[in-house]
Amino acid sequence: MANNPLFPEDPDDTRAAIMEATFDALAEHGYSDLTINQVSQRFAKSEGLIFYHYDGKDEILLELLKYLLERVQKGRLPIADDVDPETRLRALLDNILPTGDEHQKRDYEKVLVELRTRAIHNEDYRECFNRSQMGFRESVREIIVAGIESGDFREVDPDSVADFILALVSGEIFDRITVDRHRTVRTELDDYIEDRLLAVEES
Amino acid sequence: MANNPLFPEDPDDTRAAIMEATFDALAEHGYSDLTINQVSQRFAKSEGLIFYHYDGKDEILLELLKYLLERVQKGRLPIADDVDPETRLRALLDNILPTGDEHQKRDYEKVLVELRTRAIHNEDYRECFNRSQMGFRESVREIIVAGIESGDFREVDPDSVADFILALVSGEIFDRITVDRHRTVRTELDDYIEDRLLAVEES
Repeated sequence: MANNPLFPEDPDDTRAAIMEATFDALAEHGYSDLTINQVSQRFAKSEGLIFYHYDGKDEILLELLKYLLERVQKGRLPIADDVDPETRLRALLDNILPTGDEHQKRDYEKVLVELRTRAIHNEDYRECFNRSQMGFRESVREIIVAGIESGDFREVDPDSVADFILALVSGEIFDRITVDRHRTVRTELDDYIEDRLLAVEES
Repeated sequence: MANNPLFPEDPDDTRAAIMEATFDALAEHGYSDLTINQVSQRFAKSEGLIFYHYDGKDEILLELLKYLLERVQKGRLPIADDVDPETRLRALLDNILPTGDEHQKRDYEKVLVELRTRAIHNEDYRECFNRSQMGFRESVREIIVAGIESGDFREVDPDSVADFILALVSGEIFDRITVDRHRTVRTELDDYIEDRLLAVEES
């Protein structure tokens, strides 16, 4: 519970408190073993209050998913649009693949993968992830299109590059929390930008 | 059940029949909603026989995971090692990101992601995926090292490239079954090989 920046420290904010308890319980137990009781153990108020607000596990988790996607979106550093496309692309990747507090990041990624696996069989989760992934994809695509127009990038296919970067970010997170791999793709991703995207300077 | 090449059609092979029933039930329901009863409904013999062989859900699913990793490994086309590193790398990717029967592939990927998400909280699953991912990673790494030695590839960092390709493959599968995205990263991956890995020919 200690100072997770995703959750404001306002004792009167019942929703945020339920969200934080749910987040912590999900990170610890995983979706299939999660019970409302585990959530309420992390929640200062009574279990009845949780049931009063939410009608079961998926309802509370969908709420958590929406809450997280909103917070993460808001928490991202704004990317100036008056800088060159290469700088914008690297700033976007800094936002999406942040370094920083390892423990909190790991919990966030665990929770994200647990919820996203739910999207295989549940349309409500799928819709949330469709929206968030398509938003990210569109941001990448726009930057690539701008870079081609300005002559900073080569004549690549913006859709293919956007899907490629999307898959790379998803895979980085999925690999990091499901197998013992401690390296990051970021260095090679920067080299990909350099060798594949940047226009070759004329000599 | 129709002609899934992962499961041999031998009516006396009880283990293969249980594995196929488990695979189908997991693809349809997902890990958290899966019950032994759903497996036995797909299995011609009695439920008692399943319980006789396996002690609960995780035991039968771990067996399925080992079975699948073994089969997939064996089912891969052998890659000739007397061809150049670029051809070997592309052949390896053909094996890992196959085209082919869309429905069967989708079920296989669903099952794989469900089982891999289990690895977040269960060491036994994690060990299996560690082994299979590290095996794939080592294959990529070896090809990159050989390519640098032969002068076919540039002086890239083999570890970084291996992790990059690993993440890309994981992300491709994870994206494909959890969000509505129907494109493949393969074209851009081929361009990455071209522009980032292949040595620049001297003119």
